[in-house]
Amino acid sequence: MEFSRRISALRPSAIREILKAPTDPETVSLAAGNPSPEAFPAAEMAVIAAEIFANDAAGALQYGISEGYGPLRERTRERVRVKHGIGRAGDDLIITSGAQQAVELAAKALLNEGDTVICEDPSFIGSLNALRSYGVKLVGVPCGGAGMDLDGLERAFREHPEAKMVYTIPTFQNPTGEVMPLAARKRLLELAAKYDAAVLEDDPYRELRYDGEDVPAIKSMDTEGRVIYAGSFSKIVAPGIRLGFALAPAPLIAKMTAAKQVSDVHSNLFFQILVERYMARHDLDAHIARCRDLYRTRRDVMDAALKRHMPGVRWRVPEGGLFLWIELPGGIDGTDFCRRAKERKVMAVPGSAFLTDEGGFSGAARLNFSLPSPEQIETGVSRLGETYLEMTSP
Amino acid sequence: MEFSRRISALRPSAIREILKAPTDPETVSLAAGNPSPEAFPAAEMAVIAAEIFANDAAGALQYGISEGYGPLRERTRERVRVKHGIGRAGDDLIITSGAQQAVELAAKALLNEGDTVICEDPSFIGSLNALRSYGVKLVGVPCGGAGMDLDGLERAFREHPEAKMVYTIPTFQNPTGEVMPLAARKRLLELAAKYDAAVLEDDPYRELRYDGEDVPAIKSMDTEGRVIYAGSFSKIVAPGIRLGFALAPAPLIAKMTAAKQVSDVHSNLFFQILVERYMARHDLDAHIARCRDLYRTRRDVMDAALKRHMPGVRWRVPEGGLFLWIELPGGIDGTDFCRRAKERKVMAVPGSAFLTDEGGFSGAARLNFSLPSPEQIETGVSRLGETYLEMTSP
Repeated sequence: MEFSRRISALRPSAIREILKAPTDPETVSLAAGNPSPEAFPAAEMAVIAAEIFANDAAGALQYGISEGYGPLRERTRERVRVKHGIGRAGDDLIITSGAQQAVELAAKALLNEGDTVICEDPSFIGSLNALRSYGVKLVGVPCGGAGMDLDGLERAFREHPEAKMVYTIPTFQNPTGEVMPLAARKRLLELAAKYDAAVLEDDPYRELRYDGEDVPAIKSMDTEGRVIYAGSFSKIVAPGIRLGFALAPAPLIAKMTAAKQVSDVHSNLFFQILVERYMARHDLDAHIARCRDLYRTRRDVMDAALKRHMPGVRWRVPEGGLFLWIELPGGIDGTDFCRRAKERKVMAVPGSAFLTDEGGFSGAARLNFSLPSPEQIETGVSRLGETYLEMTSP
Repeated sequence: MEFSRRISALRPSAIREILKAPTDPETVSLAAGNPSPEAFPAAEMAVIAAEIFANDAAGALQYGISEGYGPLRERTRERVRVKHGIGRAGDDLIITSGAQQAVELAAKALLNEGDTVICEDPSFIGSLNALRSYGVKLVGVPCGGAGMDLDGLERAFREHPEAKMVYTIPTFQNPTGEVMPLAARKRLLELAAKYDAAVLEDDPYRELRYDGEDVPAIKSMDTEGRVIYAGSFSKIVAPGIRLGFALAPAPLIAKMTAAKQVSDVHSNLFFQILVERYMARHDLDAHIARCRDLYRTRRDVMDAALKRHMPGVRWRVPEGGLFLWIELPGGIDGTDFCRRAKERKVMAVPGSAFLTDEGGFSGAARLNFSLPSPEQIETGVSRLGETYLEMTSP
């Protein structure tokens, strides 16, 4: 069989080999993007699930509508409006199978083959591949410590005034952990307006802030209906249930709903009902506060371990999210570093995995601190330190 | 915002207006495609769900892999191999979010914009729209009482030798309920080989047979690795959980897995585990036998009601599936018929909804007998009879 051009463009990368499940049970993985199972409200969910089976199974197991379970849509919309100032008259919300699907549906509804999308470089590989899967041309703008560099964005627009979209993770960016400051967000929106581009704001980590002050979402400043906001229940409830959402101007949500209908008809209805009842009955913010405490501790353990084991390596302590981004000195290849680290029984993701240029060089690696225990973090980072020492010893 | 060409091609149709939820609670719907909630094994599922929450929540609520939960993939593969003779060395299986996603992923992985796909005419609107959403050109071949007319398929191939795929629902076709005989299946496969086209066999109703003998799946005769087989748990377990599968040559499944990864990462893992345990612990075939009894009765009630209330209208009693297809005499417009029927508090789907030519004429309508109760079927068909009488009275 001959495959489509768009899917042929999704090449399996050398990185996959590094990320394959380790055969050695002693291996510590800092390569995941997973929340901790300790952060799942499983006991509360179990009670609600039993109730749904007892009283509402006929509806919860039946076909639903593509835009999502009405009460969950309303509750989610209300939550982001009150907490984050997101959503105006003219906006609508669709429940998606994770924020991943929000990105994919937005791409499908807005982009033609050959269109240009500007994004951070590095950025989340799942979204880059979703865009690539529609034959889109990616133009990367470096992150300079505070998210996408806005001078770089302006240059990118000048070189590609035809760009249809800016894809950004402004808050606790994946993989760098960086936060785009308020002024930069405003400037991004101005530039998008000037060049008449849509903005896809991917914001799954917003609620996982460990220090500092919230920075308003770009969508909260969107008076023109230019921004598509993608959110997720994966990091605040659980990822295996595959629930997220997109909030955008109603005509676009209608198109994304048509695209969702032909993709999976609707997201798992049982868990849509379950999450709505969880939010109605329990204090989601109190639950998130517990998740923050859990992850803050792990982030601090990782920071301390890096200080002990990896002198000479650079990193910023992220104020939130799941990832810490280390930059290796002296031209060390991040891919080579991660390959050797795996031999020493610790896994990390090489920075090159996140580049818009799939063959590009990166001297960085992404470390996850949410899934491993503090002990595993200590062990893992000490092994990374040994790898680093090996590579830098004369 | 400007929408993509592919999504702009998905036009909302006049039929949507007819199918909108009725405001009148007295309205009987024969317009659904839903199984009956009485056919959901909810009590057994509730027990398993409680066990998963008690013992395995950390894994079941966590991220899974895109190809699906290993034990469910294996059990599904084994089941279709033993029961239907489907799957050979070189084939692989992916768990999808319903058979709808199997169709969409196959389209995404195999078809470029402008490619030609030959399909039955009428056919399932969800699949036709999935194909349209990738800018595919549809060439319809009429159903002649025994599924796709094979002489028509040969003509279609002669006129479109470049066709990349044949999309077919050979067993209890949606909407016609027709079954393609064995000889026609063989000939379809020969024609596909001659013109080097893939075959997408959509088979969600296979297990819901009420009379007659099983006809082997096209996939069971596929020695060349040309057929993609799409199956579903929606009609034998429950649709709201959104689980189905595709079985196809491993290189294609790998591409579909890459496409799924960027679409929804994976299907709801909790219910993948639940369905696997249900299949391991309970007799799925005994459950399906009960569903068959339930639906056979309703089909017979509908047949008897049609005989009483709609003389002059033609239909074949389907040997399985969820639908009965009525053909109105004397050039009556099915869309007009369904619009008037809704005013008389009964809903059916006009045949034009299923045409490859979206503006085409159809003097037919699709009736569903799985969801309404026998009493509702009787009431609904008697109202259809009144509508028909009104339209044929001088």
